[in-house]
Amino acid sequence: MSDFFPSVPKIAYEGAKSKGALAFHFYNPDEILLGKTMKEHLRFAMSWWHTLCAEGSDMFGSGTLAKNYGQSDPTAYAVAKAEAGFELMQKLGIDFYCFHDRDLAPEAETLAATNARLDVVADKLEALQKGTDIRPLWGTANLFSNPRYQNGAASSCSPEVFAFAAAQVKKALELTVRLGGEGYVFWGGREGYETLLNTNYGLEQENIARLFTMARDYARSIGFKGLFYIEPKPREPMKHQYDYDAATAIGFLRKYGLQDDFRMNIEANHATLAGHTFQHELRVAREEGFFGSIDANIGDPLLGWDTDQFPTNVYDTALAMWEVLEAGGFKLGGLNFDAKARRASNTFEDLFQAYIAGMDSFALGLRVAVKLREDGRLADFVQQRYAGYESGLGAEIVSGKATIRDLETYALKAGDVATTSGKQEYLEAVVNSVMFG
Amino acid sequence: MSDFFPSVPKIAYEGAKSKGALAFHFYNPDEILLGKTMKEHLRFAMSWWHTLCAEGSDMFGSGTLAKNYGQSDPTAYAVAKAEAGFELMQKLGIDFYCFHDRDLAPEAETLAATNARLDVVADKLEALQKGTDIRPLWGTANLFSNPRYQNGAASSCSPEVFAFAAAQVKKALELTVRLGGEGYVFWGGREGYETLLNTNYGLEQENIARLFTMARDYARSIGFKGLFYIEPKPREPMKHQYDYDAATAIGFLRKYGLQDDFRMNIEANHATLAGHTFQHELRVAREEGFFGSIDANIGDPLLGWDTDQFPTNVYDTALAMWEVLEAGGFKLGGLNFDAKARRASNTFEDLFQAYIAGMDSFALGLRVAVKLREDGRLADFVQQRYAGYESGLGAEIVSGKATIRDLETYALKAGDVATTSGKQEYLEAVVNSVMFG
Amino acid sequence: MSDFFPSVPKIAYEGAKSKGALAFHFYNPDEILLGKTMKEHLRFAMSWWHTLCAEGSDMFGSGTLAKNYGQSDPTAYAVAKAEAGFELMQKLGIDFYCFHDRDLAPEAETLAATNARLDVVADKLEALQKGTDIRPLWGTANLFSNPRYQNGAASSCSPEVFAFAAAQVKKALELTVRLGGEGYVFWGGREGYETLLNTNYGLEQENIARLFTMARDYARSIGFKGLFYIEPKPREPMKHQYDYDAATAIGFLRKYGLQDDFRMNIEANHATLAGHTFQHELRVAREEGFFGSIDANIGDPLLGWDTDQFPTNVYDTALAMWEVLEAGGFKLGGLNFDAKARRASNTFEDLFQAYIAGMDSFALGLRVAVKLREDGRLADFVQQRYAGYESGLGAEIVSGKATIRDLETYALKAGDVATTSGKQEYLEAVVNSVMFG
Amino acid sequence: MSDFFPSVPKIAYEGAKSKGALAFHFYNPDEILLGKTMKEHLRFAMSWWHTLCAEGSDMFGSGTLAKNYGQSDPTAYAVAKAEAGFELMQKLGIDFYCFHDRDLAPEAETLAATNARLDVVADKLEALQKGTDIRPLWGTANLFSNPRYQNGAASSCSPEVFAFAAAQVKKALELTVRLGGEGYVFWGGREGYETLLNTNYGLEQENIARLFTMARDYARSIGFKGLFYIEPKPREPMKHQYDYDAATAIGFLRKYGLQDDFRMNIEANHATLAGHTFQHELRVAREEGFFGSIDANIGDPLLGWDTDQFPTNVYDTALAMWEVLEAGGFKLGGLNFDAKARRASNTFEDLFQAYIAGMDSFALGLRVAVKLREDGRLADFVQQRYAGYESGLGAEIVSGKATIRDLETYALKAGDVATTSGKQEYLEAVVNSVMFG
Repeated sequence: MSDFFPSVPKIAYEGAKSKGALAFHFYNPDEILLGKTMKEHLRFAMSWWHTLCAEGSDMFGSGTLAKNYGQSDPTAYAVAKAEAGFELMQKLGIDFYCFHDRDLAPEAETLAATNARLDVVADKLEALQKGTDIRPLWGTANLFSNPRYQNGAASSCSPEVFAFAAAQVKKALELTVRLGGEGYVFWGGREGYETLLNTNYGLEQENIARLFTMARDYARSIGFKGLFYIEPKPREPMKHQYDYDAATAIGFLRKYGLQDDFRMNIEANHATLAGHTFQHELRVAREEGFFGSIDANIGDPLLGWDTDQFPTNVYDTALAMWEVLEAGGFKLGGLNFDAKARRASNTFEDLFQAYIAGMDSFALGLRVAVKLREDGRLADFVQQRYAGYESGLGAEIVSGKATIRDLETYALKAGDVATTSGKQEYLEAVVNSVMFG
Repeated sequence: MSDFFPSVPKIAYEGAKSKGALAFHFYNPDEILLGKTMKEHLRFAMSWWHTLCAEGSDMFGSGTLAKNYGQSDPTAYAVAKAEAGFELMQKLGIDFYCFHDRDLAPEAETLAATNARLDVVADKLEALQKGTDIRPLWGTANLFSNPRYQNGAASSCSPEVFAFAAAQVKKALELTVRLGGEGYVFWGGREGYETLLNTNYGLEQENIARLFTMARDYARSIGFKGLFYIEPKPREPMKHQYDYDAATAIGFLRKYGLQDDFRMNIEANHATLAGHTFQHELRVAREEGFFGSIDANIGDPLLGWDTDQFPTNVYDTALAMWEVLEAGGFKLGGLNFDAKARRASNTFEDLFQAYIAGMDSFALGLRVAVKLREDGRLADFVQQRYAGYESGLGAEIVSGKATIRDLETYALKAGDVATTSGKQEYLEAVVNSVMFG
Repeated sequence: MSDFFPSVPKIAYEGAKSKGALAFHFYNPDEILLGKTMKEHLRFAMSWWHTLCAEGSDMFGSGTLAKNYGQSDPTAYAVAKAEAGFELMQKLGIDFYCFHDRDLAPEAETLAATNARLDVVADKLEALQKGTDIRPLWGTANLFSNPRYQNGAASSCSPEVFAFAAAQVKKALELTVRLGGEGYVFWGGREGYETLLNTNYGLEQENIARLFTMARDYARSIGFKGLFYIEPKPREPMKHQYDYDAATAIGFLRKYGLQDDFRMNIEANHATLAGHTFQHELRVAREEGFFGSIDANIGDPLLGWDTDQFPTNVYDTALAMWEVLEAGGFKLGGLNFDAKARRASNTFEDLFQAYIAGMDSFALGLRVAVKLREDGRLADFVQQRYAGYESGLGAEIVSGKATIRDLETYALKAGDVATTSGKQEYLEAVVNSVMFG
Repeated sequence: MSDFFPSVPKIAYEGAKSKGALAFHFYNPDEILLGKTMKEHLRFAMSWWHTLCAEGSDMFGSGTLAKNYGQSDPTAYAVAKAEAGFELMQKLGIDFYCFHDRDLAPEAETLAATNARLDVVADKLEALQKGTDIRPLWGTANLFSNPRYQNGAASSCSPEVFAFAAAQVKKALELTVRLGGEGYVFWGGREGYETLLNTNYGLEQENIARLFTMARDYARSIGFKGLFYIEPKPREPMKHQYDYDAATAIGFLRKYGLQDDFRMNIEANHATLAGHTFQHELRVAREEGFFGSIDANIGDPLLGWDTDQFPTNVYDTALAMWEVLEAGGFKLGGLNFDAKARRASNTFEDLFQAYIAGMDSFALGLRVAVKLREDGRLADFVQQRYAGYESGLGAEIVSGKATIRDLETYALKAGDVATTSGKQEYLEAVVNSVMFG
């Protein structure tokens, strides 16, 4: 193992009472809950870009933490970064990583040279993976940073740009398959519009579907058995992003016949930017049959841009893990920290502490969700609330037996009808009693 | 004609230079633009509820303008209200109205008595309509005000409540057909949730589809030839409303096989609450084949609730009318003012002036949209921008001939590719030059 | 004691493990923390309006829970309501209430008759208070519901309306003093504007200051020893409310020389509507010397209007109680539940459970805040972070000894300077470790 | 003159009917309105940073328009940039520019070397200014981009950083004075907090006041006769920025005795991020006596970050110019385009067209504001609305003669009082009739 982070030991579980700053307090990887280890439940993943590349710059200032790993040559830098990534994952006990092609290695002069550079890094990653359980949770292609994508990639007004995007996707799929990744994500960074004044919405939508279809067909042809994911986001960098939220993305997938191969990768931060709770997006994905994977980073509810903060709010993580458990747990997906330490957290220790904070918060969330299931009050309440649809009039409505005339006849006879309390405050108190009891 | 508004004359077009406060300055009903009169283009409708019923109360205070029309008996009140409505429409030259069942007549002790009261009002409306062009743009049922709907109507946890909702819809459909209405709207006032802690999302979605299907089948069986509309809204009164925006509602309709009978009724205020521009929602509806009708009222972009203001921003109306023209104009739909005068606009003259402000603003919007088409710069720019997809590589992508391998081959050879300016500032300046030139 | 809520017993503390739905699990009134009982720390208050008057209506529907207390005569209703209020407070163990004049008794035909009705209720309240610790936390006048206040009260364009407002304030002050209240709140329900097109901002600001000054002077002349409070709110019902947030209100008080008599009444829901956290508004009030009292209800961070929910988020209550403890605790202020049970919580049991949920959540918040102080890591971190200002260069800056020339000289010599990590993630993890450890 | 933009001619006024893409259609610099030329009214300024430095990068991608002016040496680049700036200003007919120290020249290894580099650029600027009317509208120091300012500048936890900030301010003041600038702006880019968990709010506020006071005193000592400005902004890059809005900043200035030397620099984009309209912030500044200067760029009302778009909405510019005219016009301030062309506007022609769009939009705004004054209906309405305060009861309230007892006596006698309509819809229609009539 490399030694880029010499002050950081392997992070161990020390329990809730410990004040250790470089230790887990709630995440106990091998502890069994509901028949699985916490590690199996949570399937944590490291994001290559924020964790290993991003140095803390923002629109108003430059980076605060250098991450060149002592290298200036692009390929040597990419290789050193891979080593640093494995050191970090191994110290944290993380088995998955997520990458864009351009995080693995920066773009070279030509596409061919870029691809060659990627092959070098892939060799390195294969070597590093050997003898470990580490592998990609998913791969993806960065189709938004290069200026050529300023007007979109699949949704670009230029077919040449579309072709470039397709070529990048093809290579990224090959890398994903080669490295054993079982997921491939589309986050449409520039798939959207800046102004409707210059936009052919219909053509752009169709072209996105064309790229997805090509990618799906090609991936299956080279043996990809995993899932594709759309990662919804409503805006930023574009004024409007087409994959606004889960409902929009699911409607798109169904329209274009992609529903068998694609699922949702739900990000908490994107949910709130779209005006939804994190739990809402997970619920929609789950109930529509599109639950897939999670980007676990959060936003600040008062800020209108993607802050990609490490998650530390246990209400959010508990209700998210509730949905994950209800969905039967992750199959191929997992919890990816698409999160960056705050710009002022300017040491590598901060980076580790940020991961610890996030992992412990999801561990707490899992613990609370398990206790909520064991407690039973929430599930029982919901079951009782809708019990009317299980027999009598309700069953006739659900089965389609009752016509609108039947229902009118019923209502004309019924006088008025009673309805029950939603009991929101009581249910919130139940959550608190389970969390803090 | 009744004389509820004696200080208000028939509103005439006096032209842009007039300072008359009770006159149109931009709406000239019989003026021909693009081969149709302005009246035919705009198809203005009066909303029964805000215009004739609502007295200006809000959550923090009571009404400021009494609208009892000198009556205390509920049926007499309902009949007088109908007369007042026709006086108002005739003075404004409006040929359409939109109603909820409960605006036409308040609920009585039993559903049967309520329905009987509605029949009296319907007789009156038929009589008033005779010899005029006035008719409903669309009808609907109020499934949100009565406490029985506190947990939703079709999405209620109670089948008894579902039955009541169905009975109301049946009667409202009959009224709509009888009065010659060619549209029927579903705005799901309480179809959503307050908290996911108590919600069976999947069952609620299915039950809404069940009611829509019943309504469609029944309406067709009694001769309804018009369109159904969903009116998307993201939140309020519920924390989350299922018909969040056009994309969500269209996805729902396609999932449940309702796409042939349903279109969108887009409200500007609801668009902005969902994080979209008014034009965006119209564009989505149009390009997905679901353009239908419009609720023309707007919100304040800085306020987070439904202010239902009369529209006076000509940028908004111009871009909306651009979309309407691109959609081929209204077929059965129109422009409904689901708008209320501000609470401090506490006279009936204010109400007329509010309608004048709104109608003139949409007339201006229409004039600008027509000029933008005649100017041609916007449409030409968009056509040029995407011209690459009409031949060569672009045509091969669109036709499906190009495979991902072909595109990679192309990209590997291409070196890098150029992309064109989006020219947002120029296009916005073009709009201003047309508006103010 | 009356028996309006027969199904509800006196609410007892049953501890964290109890599943009792009508019991406290975290609020143990007599338990000592930091040398005071929880009851002394928290000084809970009941809001007369939401708790005893509001029936669950919203802009889209009528009430769901009748609160007429079996009376139809306005005065008898007001008296019964007082009895119900005391029953509720005594069952919950709440010692304070907050009222608007018009909650105590509805307006009569004339101001004189209204005042007479208030006197009857005040007699009743005095009788009910006797032998108990119950008294007003603060009183206020409702200067926003009556249509006469549609354009504001002190900020009205009409001097007659200003006079009415002043008369109401005078009477409300007299009631507050008579009933032993030690606080008086101004929430400027209509003190703001709907549109700048019709607004004389300067005159409106001055007139508000005039009313505050009159009220202060009069109150002192009749023996009021307590504090006045401004309750900031940014918008709703008006498009813009003048008391936007704490910083704005404090600036206003200083400008008009009212800083010795006025403090802030901070409401969590209003904080978030203004774009601030609850803690932020408390921090500003505290550090500027204007900490006073709290309205403990919260909003939904995704909703843009005043939902007045009972607080159940322990992060919010913990950080709020941290600020309260740092401010030295409440002196005359307290925690008022300006909260309403959700519209679908349509039973009186729900109302009690809502209070329990809110009181338990603030009890948890207090417990966490006390543990955070005992833990010490947060306070120590902040102390260390700014330690540079306690000596050397920092002390010279703070004392005013260092000139800008001195600082330039220093900087020219310094090369570059180091700066320390903000450690946000670590600090958030510390909070979680204290909350869940 | 240099020739960096060979395809762009001197931009001339061609009138409203012209379709010229590189011409003014509404801005006619020498046309007289209300006794002044449009140029004197509008006092346009170019922003050095966005216009000459920023290449279109955002958080998700790199630049799209290279602005190195053919130079790689930092000083040569800075000098070439100055030449390009003067070419651009002269082609657009702009007489003012605004700069941060670090836009003029990038930072060197040491502060001394950086200052030396600035002196070279200042020499160049002086030479370029000679024989023209071009001069700085205001200068400022960039105290937010360098990592040393990650925790703030004046509000940093580190006194060393405070010293660096002070040194930069001193030099920037000297440059401003030397170049004939009559304004100096503080935009507190990192003066705020990321989390209250690590923040000493009180000390940070005081230290900001200390820096302002030092700067004021030093500037006066070196002959600066101009004004200081605070530029309010609520958030971004920090989670909370201390100068949240005009009301907050004005309260701060009064508290620390800085009100005679400081005014507001209001930015439209920052106004809306704070939940206010642009007009609101200008109104507050004007009525409180703090009107100063304007950053004319706007945001997208649906986006939650600083998009810094060129202004093209004539409602906004008209109401802004209404406030400017009511304030008596600009004295030392002006209209600075702190605006960047959209990332996809990737040519220098786009940059010119963006300036043209913005300048024409403000020219239109000025024209509309002048017509609104001449029309008189708005001002008359407001005067009439508050006329009650000019005599009788109203005058007694304003003069302080009426006591609260007098007002109660009045109200008890008055029965009820009438109040007048706010007529918002009518007033908005008046604006449209003036804009489009």
